Amino acid sequence: MSEALERRLQTLEDRAEIAELIARYGPAADAGDADAVAALWAPEGTYQFDDTVLDADGIRALVTIPTHVEYMRRGCAHILSAPRIEIDGDTAVAVTHSIVMLREGERWVGERVSANRWELRRTAVGWRVQRRRNRLLDGDAAARELLAP
Amino acid sequence: MSEALERRLQTLEDRAEIAELIARYGPAADAGDADAVAALWAPEGTYQFDDTVLDADGIRALVTIPTHVEYMRRGCAHILSAPRIEIDGDTAVAVTHSIVMLREGERWVGERVSANRWELRRTAVGWRVQRRRNRLLDGDAAARELLAP
Amino acid sequence: MSEALERRLQTLEDRAEIAELIARYGPAADAGDADAVAALWAPEGTYQFDDTVLDADGIRALVTIPTHVEYMRRGCAHILSAPRIEIDGDTAVAVTHSIVMLREGERWVGERVSANRWELRRTAVGWRVQRRRNRLLDGDAAARELLAP
Repeated sequence: MSEALERRLQTLEDRAEIAELIARYGPAADAGDADAVAALWAPEGTYQFDDTVLDADGIRALVTIPTHVEYMRRGCAHILSAPRIEIDGDTAVAVTHSIVMLREGERWVGERVSANRWELRRTAVGWRVQRRRNRLLDGDAAARELLAP
Repeated sequence: MSEALERRLQTLEDRAEIAELIARYGPAADAGDADAVAALWAPEGTYQFDDTVLDADGIRALVTIPTHVEYMRRGCAHILSAPRIEIDGDTAVAVTHSIVMLREGERWVGERVSANRWELRRTAVGWRVQRRRNRLLDGDAAARELLAP
Repeated sequence: MSEALERRLQTLEDRAEIAELIARYGPAADAGDADAVAALWAPEGTYQFDDTVLDADGIRALVTIPTHVEYMRRGCAHILSAPRIEIDGDTAVAVTHSIVMLREGERWVGERVSANRWELRRTAVGWRVQRRRNRLLDGDAAARELLAP
């Protein structure tokens, strides 16, 4: 296989794998599957939302915190938009919106609407999240900055 | 073309085709296009939402049921999240969230927010839906199970 | 590289590039980044929403109009669904839903929910938007027609 061809194929595969990785977050969170959530991150990876920074143990515990358990009891959906992805060799940055739709009476409303910036890296077992930052789009300039190129 | 290369290309094409198939559902439903909705399923395919199971005739009739006609009259959007896709030879499973946003006064609210599990198969004319299950994320454990790995 | 192989790779790359182009719109709009918004369109491209038609200057000014500035101040998210894409040589049509989720009190609600039809073309610097049409899904038949095959 020529080098040029290999590179083109690899780039497409990288994009597909990163999109797939991100697409696993919402279903894992809503299913309350701690292992599936944890499996998305590299061992030393972090998840910062608002002003909280979680390491691997914290990420694994996410679906067991009272707020999340209450979301699942009422009915919730963690929905991520199709990502914008920039790959640079063995690292990548992806940007998505996320919404948490929460059941309220007979309807669902946007409980959280956030900007997300995912820093990813290629590991021996595939692409993993090195750092994810999530901030509420509530007028905060720091949230908007996560969406910048 | 080498077998390894052919396999890599085919896998990427399969993913793209399945993502495209699923991306056609929302526009077809909101356009009220019965043929376009029906064309997504294999002839013997089914669509189960809540406790209703539709066969090909039922799927084709979906956009003509009174609830759907009323949705279109008021203004609705059937929005699907980017799918998580697992391909195994000639079958595949895709998982998505779906939202029906419905016009209410001057705003749109989440009228249905659901978990979806799509079982697909490769047919002579391309990937088609064999079985789609949709359950409201209203706290129901059966809905959450559709999202599990 | 064989011609058949080149064609298959090119098609996958075209799809990925178009999906990426569309995925850039929401973050660019919410970040208030006029250059990033403008960069998505071909120089002669247009953006029609409701009954307004914007040319390149108008598109660049989008994030500075009072309504948009007020959205950003309150907290907003322009979220696009994963696109349905049909490519025909050097032109393509993509269809997506879009939602503007806007902060209202402690929640976010759907301020605009629209049908979008993107006409794209391959330029010397990659795929660009030639014409985007956006209409509110408020029961208007013209909006539903944007979603048709």
